[in-house]
Amino acid sequence: MTNDLFLRACRREPVERTPVWMMRQAGRYLPEYRAVRAKVDFLTLCKTPELASEVSLQPVDIIGVDACIIFSDILVVPEAMGMKLFVEEGKGGPRFETPIRTRADIQKLAVPDPNRELKFVMDALRLTRKHLNDRVPLIGFAGSPWTLATYMVEGKGSKNFRAMKELIYSNPKDAHVLLEKLARTVAAYLSAKIEAGAQAVQIFDTWGGILPPDEFKEFSLRYIEQVLTLLKSNGVPTIVFCKDCGHSVEAIADTGCTVVGLDWSIDIAKARMMVGSTTALQGNLDPTMLYAPPERIRDGVKKILEKYGKGSGHIFNLGHGILPDIPVEHAKAFVQAVKEESVKYHQ
Amino acid sequence: MTNDLFLRACRREPVERTPVWMMRQAGRYLPEYRAVRAKVDFLTLCKTPELASEVSLQPVDIIGVDACIIFSDILVVPEAMGMKLFVEEGKGGPRFETPIRTRADIQKLAVPDPNRELKFVMDALRLTRKHLNDRVPLIGFAGSPWTLATYMVEGKGSKNFRAMKELIYSNPKDAHVLLEKLARTVAAYLSAKIEAGAQAVQIFDTWGGILPPDEFKEFSLRYIEQVLTLLKSNGVPTIVFCKDCGHSVEAIADTGCTVVGLDWSIDIAKARMMVGSTTALQGNLDPTMLYAPPERIRDGVKKILEKYGKGSGHIFNLGHGILPDIPVEHAKAFVQAVKEESVKYHQ
Repeated sequence: MTNDLFLRACRREPVERTPVWMMRQAGRYLPEYRAVRAKVDFLTLCKTPELASEVSLQPVDIIGVDACIIFSDILVVPEAMGMKLFVEEGKGGPRFETPIRTRADIQKLAVPDPNRELKFVMDALRLTRKHLNDRVPLIGFAGSPWTLATYMVEGKGSKNFRAMKELIYSNPKDAHVLLEKLARTVAAYLSAKIEAGAQAVQIFDTWGGILPPDEFKEFSLRYIEQVLTLLKSNGVPTIVFCKDCGHSVEAIADTGCTVVGLDWSIDIAKARMMVGSTTALQGNLDPTMLYAPPERIRDGVKKILEKYGKGSGHIFNLGHGILPDIPVEHAKAFVQAVKEESVKYHQ
Repeated sequence: MTNDLFLRACRREPVERTPVWMMRQAGRYLPEYRAVRAKVDFLTLCKTPELASEVSLQPVDIIGVDACIIFSDILVVPEAMGMKLFVEEGKGGPRFETPIRTRADIQKLAVPDPNRELKFVMDALRLTRKHLNDRVPLIGFAGSPWTLATYMVEGKGSKNFRAMKELIYSNPKDAHVLLEKLARTVAAYLSAKIEAGAQAVQIFDTWGGILPPDEFKEFSLRYIEQVLTLLKSNGVPTIVFCKDCGHSVEAIADTGCTVVGLDWSIDIAKARMMVGSTTALQGNLDPTMLYAPPERIRDGVKKILEKYGKGSGHIFNLGHGILPDIPVEHAKAFVQAVKEESVKYHQ
């Protein structure tokens, strides 16, 4: 492989510089992405391997990131389980027509065969691997069981997550049935992605942070651990990113994942002290810092590199997805700053 | 005073049981509150001492909480500094017509005399003290300088807080000028509240958690500390509540506040270990747990009491404001559960 910095950093092996990529790097901030989206709707883009592959490759070519993440949406998984997904243009991300509310709803959900119901994702991965031609590694991803369940029960994003909270507080047994089914589904999905060519996988737990720490462990982390246990990883690195879960960094590392993804609410120096001897770290620049001018972005990058300190085991990233209105030049300046400023920490 | 449990717990003095109140306890979940609001708009309610006092007293009479917090809105302070505030019914909370964007905007802001421009708040406090007749203590509050600045710069609540983040990352000097002016304003405002009868004051830092830990300290906590330094407290307890700032519990206690308010993302046992020998703690039930049936609410209460353990220094509360669609019976069950279950921890 031409550039395997990302994979080496995941394994905490020596690197010449810190690798960098951005969550949501294949996305709306890129004019080239918007040009593709102008022709097809969001779900068609997810489901057309040629187009999904095209937008996945854009940040590799345009921004120069050290890893390619396959373009997709976490909600194609519940759709494959039998839920009807739709997008109302201009009204936010995909939503479910009929949210899950009863035990019967949960029992009706299928555990899909990812190579059949989600073949379009596997095709996109194979095509992207081919086009990448080993320039940089390819990452596959999935939502965590908890985060998927949250969307399935609420139907969409939410402010207070009333329906999901009612489910876990008033009816925890049903919640566990749903989460267990999701853990099996996600494990099979990520295993198929690895088989189709993903060289690392990331689990996104976007909504783990809405839970108190004990409930986070009971309803989210436990099922992430189950996914990792069931996963046919063939030794590929696994990244677990739980947003707003700084309270549980050690517990996340204890799942046995290769890398803990950090949002910007935790000091990476502290996180390294807590888990850095066993686990690599990914993160964690405040995504809104990319609104600032390039010199300021560079200062932000330098500060995080300094906090992490010398040695491998750090994959630079934002603390959450890149925002759609970030200037492309700022994204480039961010990646360039990591490439230049990190060299001295690996000498 | 008939019931001074709240004040004694703030000072970590012995109590017979754990006191309890709820953030936003004077609010929409109460039909009696909605009846008052049906007659006047939100800002009129804030600015009419008789009505503000009436709704402040409702939860004392109806729910049986151990403290009364004066009904008001944090944004009346920037309004008194010269910003025009308005409410569009059905479109969320109050907003500013012209957000602050330039240094000139910041320089134009006045440091108001709270006994003149915010006299309606002081009148409401005096009236409420009179009606309370020493049944329970009266709490005054203010937004933190950072949280007020965020609303002033964004104009309203925000998802990514782009304008405020651009200000601190690209133009930190201006941000500091604004925050310093706000610290003086808030200190004068809270001092006047204490003079008018508030027996404790709480600073709400609703948006401290959008910052990385270092920036939280630089742009939020530093100015909370300044407020506390400038405050003419006359020995009344001070509560600092920073949402989503579990990363900085020790630093918050180091401001010298009497009580650290906790949201539900931190384990109260851990927080007590960190700061409990110097500082009382307030919190921290997940507010959505009040959607669950009363038996389940009681279990949640018991778990937090058990985590805090024996001894004084705990004021029970929700981890954030009570939600507007919580059934009144559930709020009552919550308060009752604390009153009953906490006795054994104080024997």
